Amino acid sequence: MLGAIEAGGTKFVLAVSDNTLEHVEKLSIPTTTPEETFDKVFEFFDNYTLEAIGVGSFGPIDVNKNSSTYGYVTSTPKLAWQNVDFLGKLKERYAVPVAWTTDVNAAAYGELKKGAAVGKNSCLYLTVGTGIGGGAVINGEPLEGYGHPEMGHIPVRMHEEDSFKGTCPYHSNCLEGLAAGPAIEQRYNKKAQYLTDRKDVWDIEAYYLAQALMTYTLTLSPEKIILGGGVMKQSQLYPLIRKEFSKLVNGYVATPDLDEYIVSPGLDDNAGITGCLLLAQKEL
Amino acid sequence: MLGAIEAGGTKFVLAVSDNTLEHVEKLSIPTTTPEETFDKVFEFFDNYTLEAIGVGSFGPIDVNKNSSTYGYVTSTPKLAWQNVDFLGKLKERYAVPVAWTTDVNAAAYGELKKGAAVGKNSCLYLTVGTGIGGGAVINGEPLEGYGHPEMGHIPVRMHEEDSFKGTCPYHSNCLEGLAAGPAIEQRYNKKAQYLTDRKDVWDIEAYYLAQALMTYTLTLSPEKIILGGGVMKQSQLYPLIRKEFSKLVNGYVATPDLDEYIVSPGLDDNAGITGCLLLAQKEL
Ligand SMILES: Nc1ncnc2c1ncn2[C@@H]1O[C@H](COP(=O)(O)OP(=O)(O)O)[C@@H](O)[C@H]1O
Ligand SMILES: Nc1ncnc2c1ncn2[C@@H]1O[C@H](COP(=O)(O)OP(=O)(O)O)[C@@H](O)[C@H]1O
Ligand SMILES: [Zn+2]
Ligand SMILES: [Zn+2]
Repeated sequence: MLGAIEAGGTKFVLAVSDNTLEHVEKLSIPTTTPEETFDKVFEFFDNYTLEAIGVGSFGPIDVNKNSSTYGYVTSTPKLAWQNVDFLGKLKERYAVPVAWTTDVNAAAYGELKKGAAVGKNSCLYLTVGTGIGGGAVINGEPLEGYGHPEMGHIPVRMHEEDSFKGTCPYHSNCLEGLAAGPAIEQRYNKKAQYLTDRKDVWDIEAYYLAQALMTYTLTLSPEKIILGGGVMKQSQLYPLIRKEFSKLVNGYVATPDLDEYIVSPGLDDNAGITGCLLLAQKEL
Repeated sequence: MLGAIEAGGTKFVLAVSDNTLEHVEKLSIPTTTPEETFDKVFEFFDNYTLEAIGVGSFGPIDVNKNSSTYGYVTSTPKLAWQNVDFLGKLKERYAVPVAWTTDVNAAAYGELKKGAAVGKNSCLYLTVGTGIGGGAVINGEPLEGYGHPEMGHIPVRMHEEDSFKGTCPYHSNCLEGLAAGPAIEQRYNKKAQYLTDRKDVWDIEAYYLAQALMTYTLTLSPEKIILGGGVMKQSQLYPLIRKEFSKLVNGYVATPDLDEYIVSPGLDDNAGITGCLLLAQKEL
């Protein structure tokens, strides 16, 4: 059987399934201290005979196999989770292979194998929520190198009608600092979900996201870009982003038809946990 | 034997070698019309019994195997070369496997296997010359997806002391529009090679390049970044770029020590042609 953990900052989604992913059982638990949380993970997994586990974790995490802290959650703002040996704890309890990557790489993998990017060799998954995080699959493998992508923190040009200073403690007005949910909330003193009717809000949001997608396209050339996360529940954003993307790219690079290129997740909120199960399956 | 073509806009570098790359013979020919140029290519290669060929070409080119124009040079500003079936012409003459990618992907591959990134799984190669072009190798494979990277055209933030409008016909002030050799020349009415002593020139240049390297790092997380091309002959740029990169990233992501991370080519001007030979070898 396969085990999977989509480890988020507020909740962990746990799943087990048979090796073909036909029957999946899931459980969601709150993210509290590492001790308490892992106790609940073990309690759930101990009922099964797992052959492999897949983890997609919030981060930053160490994915560098040459590093002495490979498998750790590293400099996360969630203090109790800083420098926690996530992979080590699992390996100690279960003597099985464990796939270890970011939550967004797992989501990209899920979307490639069973979601919006089925049949492709590559895709990029961007979540626009409390933060902005991006993952990708290239030639069928989650994208990692010295570390893992942190696509939410790329510099962007300011929209000419925006003077918001940005929320990122590291870069102020990077993409995440200007376009994640909390940036929208601070800019307008209202949560994004209550701003649906404000055209100006979504024009500015689309400008930043389109700029980022242009950059990712020019850098990575994925076959599909999938946008998820709370803010993307504002589905009017998709056509606005496509329009802005087209304006910015200005015909310079070939992309698939934009309606096919910039899309919503095929697996809705299950992209991450499905990706984790599939990454576990890949370890068999 | 192996054949290789590094196809540039002004010259083609041709090479043949034994299958282990021990003995390499090279010839450089000017890029004129496709007919004339290919005649010279054939004249050179016809003397050998090639088993595979590797091509790294100027572009944009079509690298999408599902496309009907796979193997073509597409929308290049060099009019005579627009929509030329480069790969087809080679395949017609030589019934051997041909590796086909961009000049900068080939250079990245060369640097990974025999240059500054030996021992790594990934690297990024950026040339800063008449244009700015980037290539990468990820998990040992040249980076391609729907198309190939066009890293030179990413949007960047203007330096606060720069009011140059940019040279890019598509995006005006994209990275290439602000930081390639011709942008420097137009901004100061003097070729870059005659501006060595002007501190302001290189501060602005380093700011743009560092911003781009930050974006590539956050998006791709390569294990090494190699900077080549005419403009990078100004070797004072390397430390300036590293300093600016460090300031911009502001500790947010782990990178190797910057002296090891942002480096000059290990193969000097042979990165591209060596990469082409190695890509041919990979086809055996
Ligand atoms: N329907 C909605 N429309 C716009 N923004 C939303 C919506 N739902 C949630 N958000 C915003 O998304 C952010 C939460 O992101 P979400 O993806 O749900 O969780 P997280 O990123 O923490 O996993 C909040 O800033 C919230 O205001
Ligand atoms: N030593 C140098 N210092 C600064 N700039 C240079 C130097 N040599 C060439 N360049 C600039 O690099 C550009 C040419 O780039 P190069 O990489 O040599 O060729 P290409 O990009 O056409 O293959 C020109 O704009 C030129 O001004
Ligand atoms: Zn940031
Ligand atoms: Zn451009």
